[in-house]
Amino acid sequence: MKRREFIKKAGAGALAASAAMGAVPAMAAKPVMWKMVTTWPPHFPMLGEGADYMAKLVDEMSGGKFKISVYGGGELIPPMGVFDAVSQGTVEIGHGAAYYWSGKAPAAQFFAAVPFGFNAQSQNAWITSGGGLALWEEIYKPFNLKPYLGGNTGVQMGGWFNKEINSVADLKGLKMRIPGLGGQVLAKAGGNAILVAGGEIYTNLERGVIDATEWVGPYHDLKLGLHKVAKYYYYPGWHEPGSSLEFMVNIGAYEKLSPEFKAILDTAIGKVNGWMLCEFEAKNNDALNELVTKHKVELKKFPDDVLKTLKSYADQVLDELAAADPMSKKVYDSFKSFRSKIYEWNKVTEEVYQQFKYI
Amino acid sequence: MKRREFIKKAGAGALAASAAMGAVPAMAAKPVMWKMVTTWPPHFPMLGEGADYMAKLVDEMSGGKFKISVYGGGELIPPMGVFDAVSQGTVEIGHGAAYYWSGKAPAAQFFAAVPFGFNAQSQNAWITSGGGLALWEEIYKPFNLKPYLGGNTGVQMGGWFNKEINSVADLKGLKMRIPGLGGQVLAKAGGNAILVAGGEIYTNLERGVIDATEWVGPYHDLKLGLHKVAKYYYYPGWHEPGSSLEFMVNIGAYEKLSPEFKAILDTAIGKVNGWMLCEFEAKNNDALNELVTKHKVELKKFPDDVLKTLKSYADQVLDELAAADPMSKKVYDSFKSFRSKIYEWNKVTEEVYQQFKYI
Repeated sequence: MKRREFIKKAGAGALAASAAMGAVPAMAAKPVMWKMVTTWPPHFPMLGEGADYMAKLVDEMSGGKFKISVYGGGELIPPMGVFDAVSQGTVEIGHGAAYYWSGKAPAAQFFAAVPFGFNAQSQNAWITSGGGLALWEEIYKPFNLKPYLGGNTGVQMGGWFNKEINSVADLKGLKMRIPGLGGQVLAKAGGNAILVAGGEIYTNLERGVIDATEWVGPYHDLKLGLHKVAKYYYYPGWHEPGSSLEFMVNIGAYEKLSPEFKAILDTAIGKVNGWMLCEFEAKNNDALNELVTKHKVELKKFPDDVLKTLKSYADQVLDELAAADPMSKKVYDSFKSFRSKIYEWNKVTEEVYQQFKYI
Repeated sequence: MKRREFIKKAGAGALAASAAMGAVPAMAAKPVMWKMVTTWPPHFPMLGEGADYMAKLVDEMSGGKFKISVYGGGELIPPMGVFDAVSQGTVEIGHGAAYYWSGKAPAAQFFAAVPFGFNAQSQNAWITSGGGLALWEEIYKPFNLKPYLGGNTGVQMGGWFNKEINSVADLKGLKMRIPGLGGQVLAKAGGNAILVAGGEIYTNLERGVIDATEWVGPYHDLKLGLHKVAKYYYYPGWHEPGSSLEFMVNIGAYEKLSPEFKAILDTAIGKVNGWMLCEFEAKNNDALNELVTKHKVELKKFPDDVLKTLKSYADQVLDELAAADPMSKKVYDSFKSFRSKIYEWNKVTEEVYQQFKYI
């Protein structure tokens, strides 16, 4: 600022000058204080970090007048208590993934991961610009919750196995840590889908309590050391081709916010949704490279006929879900309608792009 | 709010109550006023709308204390004058695409579109989390500019042609509207890359002034009516597989912002970057469907050997760019390093995902 301009501004009074620069008078500073509970361990790489980053953006944009304290799973509320805690208004906001709440809202699963469903780009497009969000809001409204896309893992890996999967028969009796709809698909193939918390996967796999496990992707799998207790790293992650994370906000708490703070919250979440996928894509590259070159992990692709059979089971699982729950049917119809179009679009764009690396 | 709570808050003084809800006292409201110039026609679908949306978010988040007036190309500054206007501080912010400024900063082209380069997901990951942004900032700093990712078109189409492209020989002498590095690649194949403004493409193609054109994608191409004056719609858009748009901010103007307004600007742009790709993906689907089913447009894929030859020319163009300009070499090295890793990662994720539609 030039000196003359400064004097002019100063002449209008210190308060006005300060306001013109966007600063907020200290006397007005009684902050809105929110608590965020998450399904992740505290500051969990990328996922918990995304929650931390969102809170930091809200703090910065509001000049410290809107503060969100982030709690890891179990610090304030057990990981699987997040939905109820936000729904009941015990806390104002949560970060997790919608498939954790299938017992309360089966249709919510479409907004996390669908076996043979969307990748990150299509998932974001369907929810943001293809009608998905309105349906998700409809599902969560009876619980007094407002949902938001809160990050995406990208296409996941298929998991860690100690024996080769050469046919669907090799899945029979397999004890695999795999949650949600993917687990139901495995069950149709005769496998046993077992729920194991992240912290216990390594030991369970080492001791043979489970035969196989999926986790997140190379970056997280490397950190957990899964390459030390499993022989083969299978792809693709048919069960989670583009898992969305979610922020959920208590509607009563949201409605009490000023229009400015509503916009600040919405926008911070929007930025973090894109940021997290960038982090996953960049860090998974490096980790995959390290797993293969340094730790000599053997990558294996599920045979085509195994994928084909799993896909048919996935269709059955989704049809059964839609038959049992009218809201799931409504969401599945929207999902299928968007998929039929985006598949045609991808045929002339993303699919051909993926061939560039071989030219 | 319950009555008792209201009285309690009111007792603490109207100012504090208002501040607690995030409202800003009216007396402090002397807004920061910025002007944004863009390379697009006013409110141009998706691209200009993205600029409008960004300004709206800033306005909402700041409670009207930070206002950005958006001007279409030519309203205040000619479209190709955006870079200079923001660089010189005539206006504070611009929205465009970095390849428009190849004459001033050749290396900037990597941050818009590279023939056979990245798709949207990889481009976002490289720039946001793979070291790209620091290089882009290094390129723009001498111009007093701070760059941001400002949307992405997704994989584009290859363009509209009135004759079939069965071999590279069919590109010889072809007069095609195609800008930037893609145009240089076409020139190596013996074609004539011609610059035609958006508003003149239709007439030029109709009158045979040009033989072929690329534009943006199905949604924009349909609006322009290109299916009425061209016979074949080719894919893929090898020349622009994931074009990034950009916001550029005058560094001096940015430094004068309060920390809150800096964060508000950064975050609004971050949200719009992801939003625009969702819009492109959702609307291009519908438009492609309409072009094919209603207007009977014939989709054609460039033959593999044509793509192979164009790819070799693209490598030459990029090598020449790197040889002529040290900054371009530095950026190209980073680009190639990231590409080598993301290609391996995509082989086990996105590439296999694209096959799901055939299972």
